[in-house]
Amino acid sequence: MEPITLHPIGVIRSPFTELEKMPIQPAGARDVRGTVILDEAHTDGLQDLEGFSHIFLIYHFHRAQRIELQVVPFLDTRKRGVFATRSPLRPSHIGMSIVELCSLAGNCIEIRGVDILDGTPLLDIKPYMPPFDRFEKATSGWMKVSRATIENRRSDDRFL
Amino acid sequence: MEPITLHPIGVIRSPFTELEKMPIQPAGARDVRGTVILDEAHTDGLQDLEGFSHIFLIYHFHRAQRIELQVVPFLDTRKRGVFATRSPLRPSHIGMSIVELCSLAGNCIEIRGVDILDGTPLLDIKPYMPPFDRFEKATSGWMKVSRATIENRRSDDRFL
Repeated sequence: MEPITLHPIGVIRSPFTELEKMPIQPAGARDVRGTVILDEAHTDGLQDLEGFSHIFLIYHFHRAQRIELQVVPFLDTRKRGVFATRSPLRPSHIGMSIVELCSLAGNCIEIRGVDILDGTPLLDIKPYMPPFDRFEKATSGWMKVSRATIENRRSDDRFL
Repeated sequence: MEPITLHPIGVIRSPFTELEKMPIQPAGARDVRGTVILDEAHTDGLQDLEGFSHIFLIYHFHRAQRIELQVVPFLDTRKRGVFATRSPLRPSHIGMSIVELCSLAGNCIEIRGVDILDGTPLLDIKPYMPPFDRFEKATSGWMKVSRATIENRRSDDRFL
């Protein structure tokens, strides 16, 4: 199939300037704040977003330099298929985080629960809609750790 | 920022060959089955995915021909900022659906709850992990309709 050319729509600002020691999921960064700075040309697209408590950010793992089809996730001790993980080393290098929307002013969105590297190119914003996105009966495969474990785990250099 | 070139990792097969009359969300396509056909080069990345009941598919709205920063969503009667909707006319033309994983064999994943056009280029697969992705206290903005309404609503030509 044809390659697809995407133009980032903005940038994500966060306290994390290095890949090591980052939280490994928004659940591990509950109090970490950041800012989405949307290109001003797209500001009109943010209308009505502020009513949502959570948003999906879809972004480019711009520091991921390679692809690994099997990885040992931060929350595990054995190799798993990359599509069964959230590792940045996936073929597309597309990342996704669900973060809390704190406030919105002009082209800037203040967010909380940020597990994203500073300067990350943003590709899309979508509202988290509980009737579409909250699956009460969903079950996890290998990922059995508790939320407390996730909250305390930090990244290392395995995905550099 | 620099444009990003992405290579699709596979294709999504579904019963929907036309944009009109499609379900508007996986919630409206609960019994609709489809297939993800991953490029065989990436098959090793699917290991361990089968334990998850639901997966995120991230894909390219390849039939979206234009951008509209404000749209009237299928579930509403007034214009909303495109980032507060799931409309295909968003700047990146990136789509996302959470579908049910039925079975996996080789490079093919049988899925259910498919609101995606046949032939859609697939960009990524991620597991739905309840501790990361299920927000019990999330609240919706403008989107107040019931699941029953979503289940019965069908698309029209507004996003062609």
